[in-house]
Amino acid sequence: MIKKEKYSAAILVIGDEILSGRTQDTNSNYIAKKMSEIGIEVSEIRVIPDEKETIIESVNELRKINDYLFTTGGIGPTHDDITAESIALAFNVEININQDAFNLLESYYKEIGSPFNEVRQRMARIPSGAILIDNPISKAPGFKLENVFVFAGIPKIMTSMLENALKYLDKGKIILSKSIRVDAVEGDIAEALRKLDSEENQLKIGSYPFFNSKEDFGVNVVLKSSDKSILISSIDKFKKFLDENSINFIN
Amino acid sequence: MIKKEKYSAAILVIGDEILSGRTQDTNSNYIAKKMSEIGIEVSEIRVIPDEKETIIESVNELRKINDYLFTTGGIGPTHDDITAESIALAFNVEININQDAFNLLESYYKEIGSPFNEVRQRMARIPSGAILIDNPISKAPGFKLENVFVFAGIPKIMTSMLENALKYLDKGKIILSKSIRVDAVEGDIAEALRKLDSEENQLKIGSYPFFNSKEDFGVNVVLKSSDKSILISSIDKFKKFLDENSINFIN
Repeated sequence: MIKKEKYSAAILVIGDEILSGRTQDTNSNYIAKKMSEIGIEVSEIRVIPDEKETIIESVNELRKINDYLFTTGGIGPTHDDITAESIALAFNVEININQDAFNLLESYYKEIGSPFNEVRQRMARIPSGAILIDNPISKAPGFKLENVFVFAGIPKIMTSMLENALKYLDKGKIILSKSIRVDAVEGDIAEALRKLDSEENQLKIGSYPFFNSKEDFGVNVVLKSSDKSILISSIDKFKKFLDENSINFIN
Repeated sequence: MIKKEKYSAAILVIGDEILSGRTQDTNSNYIAKKMSEIGIEVSEIRVIPDEKETIIESVNELRKINDYLFTTGGIGPTHDDITAESIALAFNVEININQDAFNLLESYYKEIGSPFNEVRQRMARIPSGAILIDNPISKAPGFKLENVFVFAGIPKIMTSMLENALKYLDKGKIILSKSIRVDAVEGDIAEALRKLDSEENQLKIGSYPFFNSKEDFGVNVVLKSSDKSILISSIDKFKKFLDENSINFIN
């Protein structure tokens, strides 16, 4: 396989509870951070309801335009756990009891002395051709089908599954970044940032104002590049501008 | 205008900083909660990069299939603040200095003794036909164009703008809900929930397992309906099942 410089990923959060505002999604932020660390660019995060048709459409749209797609939520024994089935339909493959998953779950329930009933056996249903992803916490596995990774929604379990899935991901060029906290409002520095941006192709600039109170506000400026020397020279230029304009900043 | 029973909304979060994992988005959760309170169903939350083409496409897709679309982020004076321009392009209308916005900003900067320079004046650029939405904190207004509401990304400002935009929204039937914390794993209650679901059309059931430690785990079961009597009878049925199976729960 040819090693690329850039890889992209999308995150599909499946969950009525996020859309109703009942639960704050933290999984996508966790995945996004992890991807930044290994040079994979997240192109989109999408939260959709627990509805088969919507899952199928979104999976097929996002897996085709990204190197990787991560889904969270909607696996487990409950009535609305339709992710595995929807993934099978999206790929047009069968879904049956996976013997490895069945064995894992059977011995787990034996160990904790709980009946391995029919609804629990449903968690062993995995689309044909998928590779299981280990769940060290409650055993019901996630899985990988081609470039789609299917994770649980419970954050503790999701993070373990992601950890166990990293070995399947190609790593891109890591983006180096530097954050500078500036005691100013955006209007004071916007022109300087625009100039910096126009001068340097391989630099990406983010400007994130914050406003905690009338005494505590400012802008976090983030400079990013995969080229270290470009990043360093850009930081120097920006700091020079701040000094010349007597604007305080924290490195 | 005919009053509908159900209204839908989508939330479009515009922000590289969310996709890179640098910032945890909390705006969409805030908006989603607010919508639940007034009977508007959030159908999708989408996070996209600060890219004109992507913003235009997403805005046009989401505004057409929803009663309302809320965008957050990408307004303000910095180099990457391209939301207003993209919205104008999506609607195929002009974008120029809005005199009301200009006056607001001019007097604000005069008051705080800061120059109202060219980059700040850019914040007065508003698509033609839009209605301004007041920003009591830093004055640069959001706006409403047809069914699209454009808010700032800073949470404090976003929440104020949402408050000021509520008067433009039609309210739907409010969904009543009841959460019951069950001392069980999903497999213990999945069958009962499936039965409840099949018996009652106007009931929506959510099952949200949590796992804090080996001693502290369980499932939050959420029953929802816009019909109070259906909700009450369903709660009773579910509690009866829990009692019969000696499963503890907290109301």
